[in-house]
Amino acid sequence: MKKIFFLALVLSAFVYPSVAATNAIQHPCLMLTPGEVAKIKSGLGHAPLFDAAFSEAKIQVEKALAATPEVPVPFDASGVTSQRHEKNGSEMQLAGFLFQITGDKRYVGFIKGLLDRYAELYPTLGKHPASKGITPGRLFWQPLNECVWLSRVSQAYDCIYDSLTPEERARYEKNIFRPMVKFISEDCKREFDKIHNHGTWAVTPVGMIGYVMGDETMVRQALYGSKMDGSAGYLRQLDELFSPDGYYCEGPYYSRYALIPFYLFATVIQNNQPELKIFERRDELLRKALYALIQQTYNGAYFPINDAMKEMSFYNLGTVFALDHAYSQYGQDAHLLSIARLQDHVSLDAAGLAVAQGLAATPETPAFPFASAEFTDGPLGTGGGLGILRSGTGSNDSAAVMKYTSFGMDHGHYDKLALLYYNQGREILPDYGSARFVNIEQKFGGRYLKENDTFARQTIAHNTVTVDERSDYRGKFATANTNHSDRQFFDAHDPDFQIMSATDTSAVPGVAMQRTIAMIRDARLEHPVVVDVFRLTSEKSHRYDYPFYFLGHFMDVNVNLTNYVSERHPLGEKDGYQHLWLEAEGQAAGPVAFTWLSGGLYYTITTAADDSTKVLFTRIGANDPDFNLRNEPAFMLRQNAKSHVFASAIEPHGRWDGMRESTSGGESNLRTVTVLASTDEGTVVRVTGKKKLEWTLMIANGASDRTKKHSIKVGDETFTWEGDASLVKK
Amino acid sequence: MKKIFFLALVLSAFVYPSVAATNAIQHPCLMLTPGEVAKIKSGLGHAPLFDAAFSEAKIQVEKALAATPEVPVPFDASGVTSQRHEKNGSEMQLAGFLFQITGDKRYVGFIKGLLDRYAELYPTLGKHPASKGITPGRLFWQPLNECVWLSRVSQAYDCIYDSLTPEERARYEKNIFRPMVKFISEDCKREFDKIHNHGTWAVTPVGMIGYVMGDETMVRQALYGSKMDGSAGYLRQLDELFSPDGYYCEGPYYSRYALIPFYLFATVIQNNQPELKIFERRDELLRKALYALIQQTYNGAYFPINDAMKEMSFYNLGTVFALDHAYSQYGQDAHLLSIARLQDHVSLDAAGLAVAQGLAATPETPAFPFASAEFTDGPLGTGGGLGILRSGTGSNDSAAVMKYTSFGMDHGHYDKLALLYYNQGREILPDYGSARFVNIEQKFGGRYLKENDTFARQTIAHNTVTVDERSDYRGKFATANTNHSDRQFFDAHDPDFQIMSATDTSAVPGVAMQRTIAMIRDARLEHPVVVDVFRLTSEKSHRYDYPFYFLGHFMDVNVNLTNYVSERHPLGEKDGYQHLWLEAEGQAAGPVAFTWLSGGLYYTITTAADDSTKVLFTRIGANDPDFNLRNEPAFMLRQNAKSHVFASAIEPHGRWDGMRESTSGGESNLRTVTVLASTDEGTVVRVTGKKKLEWTLMIANGASDRTKKHSIKVGDETFTWEGDASLVKK
Repeated sequence: MKKIFFLALVLSAFVYPSVAATNAIQHPCLMLTPGEVAKIKSGLGHAPLFDAAFSEAKIQVEKALAATPEVPVPFDASGVTSQRHEKNGSEMQLAGFLFQITGDKRYVGFIKGLLDRYAELYPTLGKHPASKGITPGRLFWQPLNECVWLSRVSQAYDCIYDSLTPEERARYEKNIFRPMVKFISEDCKREFDKIHNHGTWAVTPVGMIGYVMGDETMVRQALYGSKMDGSAGYLRQLDELFSPDGYYCEGPYYSRYALIPFYLFATVIQNNQPELKIFERRDELLRKALYALIQQTYNGAYFPINDAMKEMSFYNLGTVFALDHAYSQYGQDAHLLSIARLQDHVSLDAAGLAVAQGLAATPETPAFPFASAEFTDGPLGTGGGLGILRSGTGSNDSAAVMKYTSFGMDHGHYDKLALLYYNQGREILPDYGSARFVNIEQKFGGRYLKENDTFARQTIAHNTVTVDERSDYRGKFATANTNHSDRQFFDAHDPDFQIMSATDTSAVPGVAMQRTIAMIRDARLEHPVVVDVFRLTSEKSHRYDYPFYFLGHFMDVNVNLTNYVSERHPLGEKDGYQHLWLEAEGQAAGPVAFTWLSGGLYYTITTAADDSTKVLFTRIGANDPDFNLRNEPAFMLRQNAKSHVFASAIEPHGRWDGMRESTSGGESNLRTVTVLASTDEGTVVRVTGKKKLEWTLMIANGASDRTKKHSIKVGDETFTWEGDASLVKK
Repeated sequence: MKKIFFLALVLSAFVYPSVAATNAIQHPCLMLTPGEVAKIKSGLGHAPLFDAAFSEAKIQVEKALAATPEVPVPFDASGVTSQRHEKNGSEMQLAGFLFQITGDKRYVGFIKGLLDRYAELYPTLGKHPASKGITPGRLFWQPLNECVWLSRVSQAYDCIYDSLTPEERARYEKNIFRPMVKFISEDCKREFDKIHNHGTWAVTPVGMIGYVMGDETMVRQALYGSKMDGSAGYLRQLDELFSPDGYYCEGPYYSRYALIPFYLFATVIQNNQPELKIFERRDELLRKALYALIQQTYNGAYFPINDAMKEMSFYNLGTVFALDHAYSQYGQDAHLLSIARLQDHVSLDAAGLAVAQGLAATPETPAFPFASAEFTDGPLGTGGGLGILRSGTGSNDSAAVMKYTSFGMDHGHYDKLALLYYNQGREILPDYGSARFVNIEQKFGGRYLKENDTFARQTIAHNTVTVDERSDYRGKFATANTNHSDRQFFDAHDPDFQIMSATDTSAVPGVAMQRTIAMIRDARLEHPVVVDVFRLTSEKSHRYDYPFYFLGHFMDVNVNLTNYVSERHPLGEKDGYQHLWLEAEGQAAGPVAFTWLSGGLYYTITTAADDSTKVLFTRIGANDPDFNLRNEPAFMLRQNAKSHVFASAIEPHGRWDGMRESTSGGESNLRTVTVLASTDEGTVVRVTGKKKLEWTLMIANGASDRTKKHSIKVGDETFTWEGDASLVKK
């Protein structure tokens, strides 16, 4: 389905409020107001986490004060000069804050000393010598870093504004701030006007320094785009980059990054133009975005869909910042405090103080309400979505995630209807994430590796079906970026039978896909079981590959395998297949059961199959001359067919404790998974197991309708149900 | 060097003390005495960890009391009947204990009910139907389990002895205990008289039931062997299986297992024949054995030398038991409490109570004194040894272990002079341990896998040199088991320069090996560096393979590699080589630097090489049709030479935090490692690095002599030093 662009809403809400006249501005006015300064002064010493942030800042700045200031001519991308300018930026910001709180003039001197040097250096700078790509930076190799620098230094300038002479202000503004704004908003206009997190990073510092200097044009450009007509700018970004549920179009890894400038500038706007009611916009969109972000985690880590690093979690200081401001702006929800307690950090501002005070006053914080949830994608919520089923809590929790979003811009992966599965606080069926080692010089300077394109983004790198060994959309960004999957239904009201279903008709022309994932609890089983039904329909014959990347150690499979023990070759030649070693293969004879061990539990995938089904075991790592990839294994079914239904049950079972040498329940409780019917009306799957367990799962294949009655006759048996799906347990 | 057998000491200490006459025995007399019963009664409610153990036992036994007792005819090896008998044994033991403490007669009834059934069943049993091997069990598939059962049930019997009628006692003894003792000590005499942990497991229950029944012959056989002449039995085992330092000949993994019966029977002996002064024997050998065991851990886990599971740690209940008794018998050393606090469990006896009371009374326990230490091997301490160098504490600690022990009996590995290296609380250069999944049915019933023999025990599976692609002793057990490496020197007195050296001339005839490992601190480096100098001398040409198995992700190597990206083959055909995929290889041009990332740190091995040195990267997993092996990578140098010195520096450096996206110091501070000299007199190695770092390490190659002066002239430079080794830092 084509993505619907979303202009109407933006334009209808469009007004030109007037920025307060320069002479009326009270400084500081950005991330600190005089009222907040008073609050922080009186709050010090009573909120331990805030005190910790405060003394950390003091130690850092005192160190800087003792050192010789350095403002080098920039020459490297991530080396000494670049790190120096970054450090100068954050140390100036902290010094500004400390001056406001302590009144200690040394901090003013420190900032002025540096600004004097930058006022000399900046006008001399041309294109940065280490820059690559079409938009070179000046102080840094890329404009993005320049934006971050200005967002910090504008705060420092704001904090010491009243301590400067008009001559000093004029010099700094003429030599640093105005040319830097010109560079960001004019020379890099394309980026500035982009509906993208880089756009938000660009408009934010321009708006911030605009407010400090009382420059109405800068503020308007930041809010409404370089043309000041609402076709770009912060508000348009806020309206288009998020769905009404708060889902950010690139996924949680980049949401975490985008929310920094979104919350930063919102706070600044709120302090300067409260009449914009920025935090109320789109039914409190920024609140929803933060809560959605936290929901998109398991054990703290963001679901690594699209380009994402697995190490990234809500412990990141960017999320600390956004969460503290959400807490502070949206009624101080105590549930957020439980996350803040885990983070063990607060931001160094009034919002951070509020959180620290909340924590000090609330020894027992209520748990954050992690729950099954669906997040629609697209500005109107019509661009597919992300489904999350959860069951259990603590280390016994399960989570199954299905991705049926839009593509997610430049960092999107070709992984329509992919599955991620977690249990025991760890990844069980993982998403590879990015092929990248952020900031690691040896690995292509920390940038995305070539294997990110050749493997990590490809369909076969994910737990979803690859058709004819070709990636979704044949790997064409332009097509992928204007399409999305569609939600079919999502129903988590019954904790014993939660289910979600989504379709895709755009990824592979001529092949319709519907994936339905249920999380089922049964009193006879210790753990919830994930049932996965992946239906493919086509009029032509195709090869369908259905992999499960698993973390843990192979235990057993009920298939006679030919294991390529003494010579190995890649599984294919392109679209990611060239990176998979084929380790073993075999022919199924009936339902396949594959068991592996991960942490303290066994896991078995029992999956429908017959003698036309091939079973493959692969491992990532072929055609990887620089050892850039992680060598993770996969279990895969391969089926040649026109239409086909893959149906699997994933059961955690038993227990294993190597230290106690104790084990139990190493054999799955499930026996068979069989597809009984697959018609336009519906799909019927049966799961059997020990203790006479027999589940019949009936899924409607037409448009969602909760009251529609369905009936399918198969041989002697007639299956009837009402609504989107039904489960009969015996 | 040939192993020296150790008979003299045993025989010289040999006496025949008299077991107390039957009528004088006060019950209970094994793991509880009347005095201890009183202590436990009054101690309840004041020592939380003991109370927890007590209520756990109560819950378990109450459950058993409520169930129908089952004493099935045995038929399986590890299934329902076997598990049932094991449970009956431990539940009887607990019930006996609970009866003594509570006086509740229901416990007596429970034990009697089961003993009545065993008295009927046991006389009917022949060879166990599921038994394999030469010594079938009766109640269990192997005699070992029968011994464990009797060690428990003898305690139960002891506890209710006084509540039984003479007729009942006569029946149980005639139908169960005497035939079981006959089975263990006569039918399985070979095992009973073996100087091996199985022998200790055999003599212990025989001695225990002997004390309960007042059977002097049984006790004597347990103490002195079936011939009662001191040629076997507990005392001989105690004298021969441990070195004077407390090192157990099979290594820590099996020491943990052996110390259970050793401490169990020692306590029983102490309670019945205190004149044997069993805990004082061999200068308090049992104390030393426990402390040595704890020293042979890193982050709680036992060094996995020889056959060993990596999950096994001092948290295991066997170690809890031994530690509690060591605490109780040897002056209540508060340092042990810090380990007990981590264990969070105590044993259910007077020793456990003492530890729990100690913990309750000591909120701040002093840390266990983990330190650099050498443990000699062999009953006289002349069978080589194990060297451990440590530096730092907490998560910043480093440990390097060198194995120069004797072979270690049936579970020994062919890994003379192997290196293990730990840092950050994790394995960095690991030992593979066993190829085994204990108790996991799918993996060959949980037994040792065939890959344990074909890979895990082989030399190439370890961080040591393999000569001509053949394992030490050509993999011949008989030769291996009568030889050992030799200590050269061990000196850890200077925390900035700790060093150990060992030699082996037996593993490969015609090749003399000397490995010297130093741990060096330098104010210019954040972390201690391990310097490894492996000298091989021979008159004939050989191929020397020098691998480092590493955990973490490959970052960079300064060698042009040919990476076999599209077709892989095993490195060799036998002696473990058949299990290594050759992933990449290249020719060195000078010192080689290989960097990988593990946890939050970078590691670089800088190693001496020239254009005659080949560099290989391998991965475990070839010829492994059942996916039994872990697919771990190795970095390897290959050198064809008569004599050769491998010299490497292993440096942890920098920092990486994916969540904060921060990195620093990704490049090693070291630049080159060069072998300057290698003569009969000594070896001289130079390490250079940033900040003009230049270390010259001089090692004496002759017999250890702390005062001997050495001098080697190389070109214009003359190196002089005194003693075994010297380090000059510039």
